[in-house]
Amino acid sequence: MTNNNHLKFYSLQDAVYKIHGRTDEEQCPLPLFWNGSGIEVTVTGTELWIDIEVDYEVFEPWAGCALNGSIVSRQMLLSGRYELCLFRGMNEHSVKNIRFFRELQAMSEDNKNCLLIHGFRTNGAFLPVSDKKYKLEFIGDSITSGEGTYGAKEEEDWIPMFMSSSKNYAVMVSDALNADYRLISQGGWGVCWGWDGNPDHNIPSCYEQICGLLKGETNEKLGAFKPYPFHTWEPDAVIVNLGTNDASVLSGHLNSDGSYHTEELMQFEKAVTDFLALIRKNNPASPIVWAYGMLGYDLTLSLTNAINTYRKLSGDHKVSFLQLPAATTQTVGSRNHPGALSHERAALILTEYLRLLL
Amino acid sequence: MTNNNHLKFYSLQDAVYKIHGRTDEEQCPLPLFWNGSGIEVTVTGTELWIDIEVDYEVFEPWAGCALNGSIVSRQMLLSGRYELCLFRGMNEHSVKNIRFFRELQAMSEDNKNCLLIHGFRTNGAFLPVSDKKYKLEFIGDSITSGEGTYGAKEEEDWIPMFMSSSKNYAVMVSDALNADYRLISQGGWGVCWGWDGNPDHNIPSCYEQICGLLKGETNEKLGAFKPYPFHTWEPDAVIVNLGTNDASVLSGHLNSDGSYHTEELMQFEKAVTDFLALIRKNNPASPIVWAYGMLGYDLTLSLTNAINTYRKLSGDHKVSFLQLPAATTQTVGSRNHPGALSHERAALILTEYLRLLL
Amino acid sequence: MTNNNHLKFYSLQDAVYKIHGRTDEEQCPLPLFWNGSGIEVTVTGTELWIDIEVDYEVFEPWAGCALNGSIVSRQMLLSGRYELCLFRGMNEHSVKNIRFFRELQAMSEDNKNCLLIHGFRTNGAFLPVSDKKYKLEFIGDSITSGEGTYGAKEEEDWIPMFMSSSKNYAVMVSDALNADYRLISQGGWGVCWGWDGNPDHNIPSCYEQICGLLKGETNEKLGAFKPYPFHTWEPDAVIVNLGTNDASVLSGHLNSDGSYHTEELMQFEKAVTDFLALIRKNNPASPIVWAYGMLGYDLTLSLTNAINTYRKLSGDHKVSFLQLPAATTQTVGSRNHPGALSHERAALILTEYLRLLL
Amino acid sequence: MTNNNHLKFYSLQDAVYKIHGRTDEEQCPLPLFWNGSGIEVTVTGTELWIDIEVDYEVFEPWAGCALNGSIVSRQMLLSGRYELCLFRGMNEHSVKNIRFFRELQAMSEDNKNCLLIHGFRTNGAFLPVSDKKYKLEFIGDSITSGEGTYGAKEEEDWIPMFMSSSKNYAVMVSDALNADYRLISQGGWGVCWGWDGNPDHNIPSCYEQICGLLKGETNEKLGAFKPYPFHTWEPDAVIVNLGTNDASVLSGHLNSDGSYHTEELMQFEKAVTDFLALIRKNNPASPIVWAYGMLGYDLTLSLTNAINTYRKLSGDHKVSFLQLPAATTQTVGSRNHPGALSHERAALILTEYLRLLL
Repeated sequence: MTNNNHLKFYSLQDAVYKIHGRTDEEQCPLPLFWNGSGIEVTVTGTELWIDIEVDYEVFEPWAGCALNGSIVSRQMLLSGRYELCLFRGMNEHSVKNIRFFRELQAMSEDNKNCLLIHGFRTNGAFLPVSDKKYKLEFIGDSITSGEGTYGAKEEEDWIPMFMSSSKNYAVMVSDALNADYRLISQGGWGVCWGWDGNPDHNIPSCYEQICGLLKGETNEKLGAFKPYPFHTWEPDAVIVNLGTNDASVLSGHLNSDGSYHTEELMQFEKAVTDFLALIRKNNPASPIVWAYGMLGYDLTLSLTNAINTYRKLSGDHKVSFLQLPAATTQTVGSRNHPGALSHERAALILTEYLRLLL
Repeated sequence: MTNNNHLKFYSLQDAVYKIHGRTDEEQCPLPLFWNGSGIEVTVTGTELWIDIEVDYEVFEPWAGCALNGSIVSRQMLLSGRYELCLFRGMNEHSVKNIRFFRELQAMSEDNKNCLLIHGFRTNGAFLPVSDKKYKLEFIGDSITSGEGTYGAKEEEDWIPMFMSSSKNYAVMVSDALNADYRLISQGGWGVCWGWDGNPDHNIPSCYEQICGLLKGETNEKLGAFKPYPFHTWEPDAVIVNLGTNDASVLSGHLNSDGSYHTEELMQFEKAVTDFLALIRKNNPASPIVWAYGMLGYDLTLSLTNAINTYRKLSGDHKVSFLQLPAATTQTVGSRNHPGALSHERAALILTEYLRLLL
Repeated sequence: MTNNNHLKFYSLQDAVYKIHGRTDEEQCPLPLFWNGSGIEVTVTGTELWIDIEVDYEVFEPWAGCALNGSIVSRQMLLSGRYELCLFRGMNEHSVKNIRFFRELQAMSEDNKNCLLIHGFRTNGAFLPVSDKKYKLEFIGDSITSGEGTYGAKEEEDWIPMFMSSSKNYAVMVSDALNADYRLISQGGWGVCWGWDGNPDHNIPSCYEQICGLLKGETNEKLGAFKPYPFHTWEPDAVIVNLGTNDASVLSGHLNSDGSYHTEELMQFEKAVTDFLALIRKNNPASPIVWAYGMLGYDLTLSLTNAINTYRKLSGDHKVSFLQLPAATTQTVGSRNHPGALSHERAALILTEYLRLLL
Repeated sequence: MTNNNHLKFYSLQDAVYKIHGRTDEEQCPLPLFWNGSGIEVTVTGTELWIDIEVDYEVFEPWAGCALNGSIVSRQMLLSGRYELCLFRGMNEHSVKNIRFFRELQAMSEDNKNCLLIHGFRTNGAFLPVSDKKYKLEFIGDSITSGEGTYGAKEEEDWIPMFMSSSKNYAVMVSDALNADYRLISQGGWGVCWGWDGNPDHNIPSCYEQICGLLKGETNEKLGAFKPYPFHTWEPDAVIVNLGTNDASVLSGHLNSDGSYHTEELMQFEKAVTDFLALIRKNNPASPIVWAYGMLGYDLTLSLTNAINTYRKLSGDHKVSFLQLPAATTQTVGSRNHPGALSHERAALILTEYLRLLL
């Protein structure tokens, strides 16, 4: 290999870039907490490298790279600080758009997990990065974490390899609508409880922080627990895809007639109503869509009841409910989660709906 | 043409056949009131004719014919009594299944409209007609009447030609699930009001009669107003696709903040709740699915609110809500109604749902 | 039924119409010999009837009707002279385009088979009918006769019901390219022999007549045997889809090593070469595409050999070969012939090819 | 990161593996010359690493990894010797099938380009790797090198990133038929000349060596120029997809009437005929399919002429021609080459054809 000696290093201060996903934008290096979080640059030059730092205890991050909007790579990131080459050998003068993005969800079960951007190395020049037409925020669980979108159907291990933002309904919808996106999601978590009934594993409790579901000193230093400055990125719509894990809790304690336990159900519905109020408080103008169903429609009537309650209590009518098609044996992916085909199908329904709404 | 002199006429008394759709099965000739209503025979012989009688004042019926499950013809029926040849020139010994069916909805706006079956003419023998695995009842409006499933997108005339059971989600679902079906539907009607606010144009008011939305002496003689004997055909599921016309009434009287008029909304929701109770009374064991959305999701939250109210009042949990995908510019048909592609898409969602339910 | 007393009869002399398909345009009534042959009018008025005359000994014709480009009916035509209503109850002032077309191929096995147009009855006015952008001529066998495009997969009877122009690759291609079309085809016939080796059942022998594969006095009177005036309708491309029946003859006499019998093969290839010369003589400027394969690729190398020979002998380079995808178990229709899905798939390949060629 | 101290290194001598693609199987480290070449293992254990060595002057190799048949990563390989983690954190006892494969074609323009496998590191055990039902050999140019299957449509740089075996008709066909595959291909090369008329850039000249299109001492040491031992891997079919680059040479020197230059055409056809004889010599029993058309059908008649000549000269009838659908504006990928959709469409046609042949 002949080294290219004409490359120049740019720390983030010296580069021009756009940040995707909730993060503490003051940090250097810049942490990518969520799946779909990333950094985007528009550059000339024949070659571009990214300088990253990676760590984890158990669950390694994965990352992907899109060149001019087309995904060209996806790989496991081992720990250490090193540079990845994003492209080389291209026409010096042509303008390339590059987006380096995190595939793995924020990892509440591994406080050492981090993916940090230090800078770039290139022989080209940085140009401004434009914004998309819309801004969309997606809030969800393993479905929004893309669990099941990679890997064979028979896979059962819970490992980062099988989660993604690259084959993910939220990103498909955003691409179809020409929208920037931010994903807040955690596998196994719900609006009221985690799948195992753990009441701490609820997304609302961390919604107002940058990435409040993480723990530990490192993440504190990285700014994860800082309040998220909602006013800096006002979404054109907030899409909530939660309830699937709550449903497994409710289904675990059925009454003898097969109905849900009333007190638990009220608790769940109150959590939905409260979460809607919380989202509205922080996003005064955004339509809110509760989009649900990719792993079954069990809570449709409970969710709509809670939404109706919220609307009545608040007088706020910019909240709606949308059913997404449940994964089938044809469209399921690994780990009994929706596969890429299921995400495509849900994305189409949601895209059509948002196109009318926006 | 050489006439086939070996054909023998069979009045209904002498033939073996199966009736599809609600009708007065004692009548001879047998009336086909609803779209999707029909008569099915299994025969040998080279040739089969059907002896029908047709009348109308304004809106002529259309009919189709399926041979061994595959639709081979669709045509306008002019008034008079005459025979139609359903097949000829086939192998004498092979067994053929033939279904002659009505394409046009029951026509509340033309009391003379009728399609009657007198009998058959054939050189073959009649064999028993088997039942499908399931029974499904569909209750709806113009969507379930298949309005828009034929004709070019620019068509605006309200004529029978553009309605059908042959390209109709209800029939597609039934075929996919191997189910017999009965359709009760009327374009422009709702659960509470017709599209123009007419409170008489509600389907619940005629649900307990064979075909209670018709009027006039002829229809009385044909048995249309007799009570429908629910116990003779117990559906494995009742699917209600109503609300689209009620929505246009509600949308016509919006409050200044864009919300629905409270009193009207309560009236609508009560109609839904009452209708569910009425369906349950007559179908004690059938799951009820309110499937809605092919022309927009406006009433999703009202419908689910009414369903929740019904469930709470009744303790009946075998009632659910399913959203069907709204028609798009790609899938719309004539008269701004869902086209065949939209029906296919809705049918897939509903089929998948019912497959889990049944 | 209330009769419409305002309808006026128009014989063909008094109507404005466009003829589709090869026929003797001087005849009144006008015969429709080939599948896809038809008559097209553009009219105002609420109602339109067509006055037809039908006869046959064994095989009845079928016909379809398209309103504003969308097929709305398809039916068996019994013998006799009678009127069919093509539409009624439409807006008086709107302009409608109606095409009444023959579904059944010219019937060489039934010399009595005929479908004649006498005129129209309407309360509207006739407007000029415009031409499409292109003209395409298709020459073929049962595939181009649409055999297998209707009916269940298990059907084995050779009856008109299962043939069509309405679900036919030739018509699909023409619609996609905005082209008028003429079909010359006969089930079981080849370029050299019929499927059973009958050397008279070859299409080239009747290519220069209007419909030379028919026989009998009636057809003579109808002009079927007159020379076809090629100069009056110069196609932008001639597509030949022949060889499938010749292949079954060649396959019946294989050499011991599995190869075709040399003499027969030479005879076949000479027939192809000669046919190309004949087509060229009559269509001096049209590209000729031999499109083959929907029922197997057996003769690909023989056909291309014959085409190469023709090109070398003639110096004519506007002749090409295109392979169409073979029907599979998924796309096959009735009678082991390509089904509608197979026709759609072939049509796409051919449309893409012609789009580059035209 | 916590290091896994229980991993054990296995050199190739100690591991159990299966080699994909032509290579010198005696070498250690093992070179992967062609795209689609790779190494496959079946292992238990929680973690697996592969020890590789990479070099290049200009064009870096890319590689991908499939876990249990599902592709999970694709990445650029920088020069050096290092280990890549193929999976980690999986269930210790479950059996995993892993395939590490080369995405980039053999690189005749970079003699330093190499990708070598030294061994594995794992805490699991190696199990035998089974063979697929069939063996398929594909011979081609940039299309078979997957050029254009990655990257945005507007990309024009000729770089490794845009080539692949992972979205490649040859691999899709093999997967659909449950076949092992070997690819021999080079962008810009033909059966007679390269795209620029260079007569050395013809695939036949290197067909009998393991990877004869490479040059240089390193490649010699790696065994690239050794005779390929055909008898060790007898394909169930040989598929040749060549002619596209020859066509651009022929099209560059057209006669004034638009026809190809006779002498050049004869030269081309002789090259085809000779290549078929060469393939047959080395694969006495394999059906040979010349599959052509993904970038246009220009040489269909020349190719079939040459194939016919070969069949006549040799008496060998196990050679056939198949047309693959040309890429369209909908299915084209980067660099005006067939995109993934075009590869899928061609793969379907070829799969269906081979299914009948095998």
